[in-house]
Amino acid sequence: MNPKTIKTFNPRTGDFLDQNYILSNLNDLNEKVSDAQLAFMVYRNTSGNERAILLETIAEEIESVTEEILAITTLETGLHAGRIQGETVRTIGQLRLFAEVARKEFWLDAVIDTALPDRRPLPKSDIRKCLIPIGPVAVFGASNFPLAFSTAGGDTVSAMASGNPVIVKAHNSHLGTHECIAAAITRALERCNLPKGIFSSIIAKGNELGAALVQHPGIKAVGFTGSYSGGTVLLDLVSKRKDPIPFYGEMGSVNPIILFTSALKDPKTVSSLISSINLGAGQFCTNPGLILTIDSEATQSFCLRMTEAIEQCVGEVMLNKAIYDSYEANMAEISAEKSYTLLGQGTKVADALSVKPSLALTSGKKFLTHPKMGKEIFGPFSLIVSCENDNELSEILMKIEGQLTFSFMGQEKEFNEQAHLIALAKEKAGRIIFNGVPTGVEVGYAMIHGGPFPATTAPNSTSVGTDAIRRFARPVCYQDAPQSLLPMALKDNNPLEIFRKINGKWCQDKI
Amino acid sequence: MNPKTIKTFNPRTGDFLDQNYILSNLNDLNEKVSDAQLAFMVYRNTSGNERAILLETIAEEIESVTEEILAITTLETGLHAGRIQGETVRTIGQLRLFAEVARKEFWLDAVIDTALPDRRPLPKSDIRKCLIPIGPVAVFGASNFPLAFSTAGGDTVSAMASGNPVIVKAHNSHLGTHECIAAAITRALERCNLPKGIFSSIIAKGNELGAALVQHPGIKAVGFTGSYSGGTVLLDLVSKRKDPIPFYGEMGSVNPIILFTSALKDPKTVSSLISSINLGAGQFCTNPGLILTIDSEATQSFCLRMTEAIEQCVGEVMLNKAIYDSYEANMAEISAEKSYTLLGQGTKVADALSVKPSLALTSGKKFLTHPKMGKEIFGPFSLIVSCENDNELSEILMKIEGQLTFSFMGQEKEFNEQAHLIALAKEKAGRIIFNGVPTGVEVGYAMIHGGPFPATTAPNSTSVGTDAIRRFARPVCYQDAPQSLLPMALKDNNPLEIFRKINGKWCQDKI
Repeated sequence: MNPKTIKTFNPRTGDFLDQNYILSNLNDLNEKVSDAQLAFMVYRNTSGNERAILLETIAEEIESVTEEILAITTLETGLHAGRIQGETVRTIGQLRLFAEVARKEFWLDAVIDTALPDRRPLPKSDIRKCLIPIGPVAVFGASNFPLAFSTAGGDTVSAMASGNPVIVKAHNSHLGTHECIAAAITRALERCNLPKGIFSSIIAKGNELGAALVQHPGIKAVGFTGSYSGGTVLLDLVSKRKDPIPFYGEMGSVNPIILFTSALKDPKTVSSLISSINLGAGQFCTNPGLILTIDSEATQSFCLRMTEAIEQCVGEVMLNKAIYDSYEANMAEISAEKSYTLLGQGTKVADALSVKPSLALTSGKKFLTHPKMGKEIFGPFSLIVSCENDNELSEILMKIEGQLTFSFMGQEKEFNEQAHLIALAKEKAGRIIFNGVPTGVEVGYAMIHGGPFPATTAPNSTSVGTDAIRRFARPVCYQDAPQSLLPMALKDNNPLEIFRKINGKWCQDKI
Repeated sequence: MNPKTIKTFNPRTGDFLDQNYILSNLNDLNEKVSDAQLAFMVYRNTSGNERAILLETIAEEIESVTEEILAITTLETGLHAGRIQGETVRTIGQLRLFAEVARKEFWLDAVIDTALPDRRPLPKSDIRKCLIPIGPVAVFGASNFPLAFSTAGGDTVSAMASGNPVIVKAHNSHLGTHECIAAAITRALERCNLPKGIFSSIIAKGNELGAALVQHPGIKAVGFTGSYSGGTVLLDLVSKRKDPIPFYGEMGSVNPIILFTSALKDPKTVSSLISSINLGAGQFCTNPGLILTIDSEATQSFCLRMTEAIEQCVGEVMLNKAIYDSYEANMAEISAEKSYTLLGQGTKVADALSVKPSLALTSGKKFLTHPKMGKEIFGPFSLIVSCENDNELSEILMKIEGQLTFSFMGQEKEFNEQAHLIALAKEKAGRIIFNGVPTGVEVGYAMIHGGPFPATTAPNSTSVGTDAIRRFARPVCYQDAPQSLLPMALKDNNPLEIFRKINGKWCQDKI
């Protein structure tokens, strides 16, 4: 019997592409997890430098197929060439940044308490701790980031940087991209003489195999970027495991933007909001889906200018049929429902899965009682909420669910006058932005791409930036260990030359 | 109608004590959570110094009632005066250590990436992150640490140090101790002019109210120290929440000790093991319940000496009837079952809930197939496993469940020769001990009291030591925030004088 296969879809033509991709089965999955467990026994003992070289080699291998990626990814996702090129650069940059983190080893979080053999009534032991990798990690690729959050994306890179094998569940919207990147990773492993089991992937239709993956006893953590519905299904499956494991689900949000008077009047506000709403056809977890203001003349004029601007916009194609259908259904509902005023819509391109960018208006009162407002609508849509007064705006901020971001636009004076709103927002989000839009998530040391549920399932963590490396590690301490048995990070002579906390003080000292 | 009440039990006399304690109901619980939420709005904005003063004031208030504590706690728990005094000192020391951590603020984990306004193609924003408290925390007191892991114990102190209100579910074995400590905390809050809602507690019979507590939407994390059965019931309840929250359950383990030949021959090994087994009537989560060796003449002689030593031991009373019954049932099973050889038992004291310290022997082969060996027996019991050879010992280490600790006793040469065993143990435990016993958990900067499931439900965390403060915090980042709106930890002039990671480098610099 021939293996079962699946095709990807071209959102511009509305046709399936020619290539067949082989579906994995449960046997494949079990084999891949076994291979990952075996590979872990080697990979966990690699040095930071060895892992850095692997990540850099993956970056090189991806660099060598950027043309191929560009060709296949644009076809599969409907995303523009410029976007794919930018995301490829970001993915490669992310690999190199995590290589630097792995090489410098400072993420190991080394802490040393030296012994006090003469302490009374009991002597004090020498205790030293650092982080170690946790084991095979399952990563679910995201539809909207075919490169930076998929096969060699953020979760894969941070898990591999800290010494963990990865099993990717490929996203069915971009299987060609996936196979191209997976092959690049496999070539890099070969070049680095590392076990192949450090990276593998499965392709599956429906939820069954993904469920088996997150419930497999050999899997020690899960990284997911996607929708609330997909994320909560996986969360529920992970919760049913006998042994709890961390589930890092990033499920998007509406990313409220609060506009103070000066920003309402500033013409740049409209242009930056409109371009953020339309970026990548609005298919970003940081899309600004909610704009909060207090009603005034300035608000009304702002709404008029926003309406004009959205009507000038030409829509783009959506990533896949499910996302397209959901957006269209949401727009139909908003057009039909009295609680919303549809301010304006842009035009469609002729391509198959194209949609109209849209803008709606509601009142604070309606927002507070409506069951759906405040939920993410994935796509180029934003809802302006005009509140009666500051109290109503505060009430909305208290009621609103966990968010990835909260943005404030205005002048410093206004921020200080309304500091209570910023304090409320801080309790609900992972990133607070001043005079900027939420799209464009910098991959750096200080970035937090996270936030309280339902934005994520793990608010004490980030899925973008170097701190993501901690997701896939746990601490171990050594009591009175001989020098010969201590990991490099904890040896007296500090061979890694890292900062360590020694008896409560950060330093680069030897002991 | 009079409120329903409950009494505590004296394990030495076998009688209930006179005092009645009022049971809480669901209304009480809801009110306490509401108060905690309101208190959080004040408490989250306190400085590290203000929280340090609170913790120091609690320490003072507990110090002022040590006599009262000693009287009631010895009655309720059957623990010796020396143990209670030691634990009181430890509890006070822990409060003062966390005060130091709160005051120094280094736990805030401040990271700053400065802006690059001229970067091409896009300018880079200024991004700064630090930790913030997460909100009301539920803490479940432990039977075996009426002070250090109960009302003002590790979880309470680390949650309060980072700015979170706490609601304690008191342990029914030591309600007098609980009320004494709770009153001390309340007095401290009053002295510090802080909202009373920062600390509250409930007393409950059965599981219903504890279940309501961990499922309450206002609760943002749970700390638990206790049995596997109690921990997994709570884990299951927490898993059923709509919004996932961290559940830090520490559920004990058998803490395997691996003895190499030199240690088998060393007479000090027997004395240190026997005293560790009997410490606090064996009622420690770090009790050495499993001793692994490879069969040899030295092993046989070691077993004889261990048998003689255990027979010299006088047993102690257990903390409560449930623990007593469970230990007695386990000993009856071990005496009756052929897979175990009961090597010897000590004698009982005359007191009501007293038990006999016990030692059993089995083979590696039997251990590998027995369904219960390897599970914790709470009390003064240890099982020696004599393996046929190194392979069998490795097999046991591969099969064994997650542990709080693993200990190795021998000479450095033996450790290096058997480094593969240490590598296996590292994958299963939070602390690796060389030539020491697992009891005696130092409260320091480097301590990890944790480990893979089922030892804990959160292996990426510790329940003892200063790093526990991270349990109840989450990161937030600020993008392009004006100086006036940044928290102290992130301001340019570094007013807290903490180490920060600035553009990837640790330093104490201003910007």
